[in-house]
Amino acid sequence: MKNMLVIGMGRFGQRLAERLLELKNNVMIVDDNADRINILAPHFTNAQIADCTNPDVLKALGVDTFDICFVTIGENFQSSLEISSQLKELGAKRVISKANRDIQAKFLLRNGADEVVYPERDMAEKLAVRCSANNLYDFIELTADYSIFEIPALPDWVGKTIGAINIRRKYDMNVLTIKKNGSEIIMPTADYQFDRDDHVIVLGKKNDVLRLISK
Amino acid sequence: MKNMLVIGMGRFGQRLAERLLELKNNVMIVDDNADRINILAPHFTNAQIADCTNPDVLKALGVDTFDICFVTIGENFQSSLEISSQLKELGAKRVISKANRDIQAKFLLRNGADEVVYPERDMAEKLAVRCSANNLYDFIELTADYSIFEIPALPDWVGKTIGAINIRRKYDMNVLTIKKNGSEIIMPTADYQFDRDDHVIVLGKKNDVLRLISK
Repeated sequence: MKNMLVIGMGRFGQRLAERLLELKNNVMIVDDNADRINILAPHFTNAQIADCTNPDVLKALGVDTFDICFVTIGENFQSSLEISSQLKELGAKRVISKANRDIQAKFLLRNGADEVVYPERDMAEKLAVRCSANNLYDFIELTADYSIFEIPALPDWVGKTIGAINIRRKYDMNVLTIKKNGSEIIMPTADYQFDRDDHVIVLGKKNDVLRLISK
Repeated sequence: MKNMLVIGMGRFGQRLAERLLELKNNVMIVDDNADRINILAPHFTNAQIADCTNPDVLKALGVDTFDICFVTIGENFQSSLEISSQLKELGAKRVISKANRDIQAKFLLRNGADEVVYPERDMAEKLAVRCSANNLYDFIELTADYSIFEIPALPDWVGKTIGAINIRRKYDMNVLTIKKNGSEIIMPTADYQFDRDDHVIVLGKKNDVLRLISK
């Protein structure tokens, strides 16, 4: 359990605050819009209607007592920047701010944010990769070179076992999980035999796997 | 290489279209804002200034010739809904639409969208989990129960091997990768000995791992 401060109750901030609460943190929410706070206040540990661009307001919140301060202001970048900067000056332990553009990310990191989140960029990136490859249900970047992919069982594989195909040697890929009919086989053994409808989750080199499934 | 149509050149649509192009797809972009299209047009296979809520416009685009049609309109939900629905009626193979709220996702899926993407919800969810746990560098949901986590080597593990600790048996977790000093050991063997600064990427039951690293 941690003490969290979320400044800005737009869609992102609200969703974040709700999930932090469900995960059993103490969550204080702040927004300068009274209507928003009045609707949300009953659910949260502590809620305040306040304009955080005013340094006295931030000081009164005791920002150094929170484990993480989130600045999730979408519309007004100047406010977002001022608040991120002042939080850090007032001794906030960790400041995570939301950016909408590359240039905003740069300014936020230079002026107080320890970390920037940038939802639309990250999601657009992932969607583009997933949709460009045939035969790819999902895709997760693990390191610069390696990723985890959810792919269909290749036609050659159906009816054969992992050991007989020798997937690790032949493709330099490791099978992590088989998803079939709503259940999952985690870390299947070499004698697992593929079915036609299997979703296979593999760890492998990004370029190798993308080349394999693009055929 | 696929034929992609991206309708709506807001931040998300633009970023998506640029990445699709980098990944060597044919990308056609459409927006009713002439300024936006004029700036972007030189980079794309094909760009049109058009109001896609007009069914004749969509018909003229030949929407059934695209592998995927993306509707990435953020501000005007009615347009987003109308266009998603008409795309499907005109024979689009696959329609992926962007939602900003739960209720929008529901309407889009009921009225033509094959898939909905929802960047702010997904990112808020992930950020909340990552920030709630101590000792968690990153986290990826694999199935409903299992996730992949990037965690520090636990203090007990340092100087011992994977086999001696018996990680798979003792914690019901599988070590996928060790990240150390900028390099990676993929699928380490049982004789791998942990260092203090190792980042360990494990696959395990979400609740078990979160409990372990929250200690």
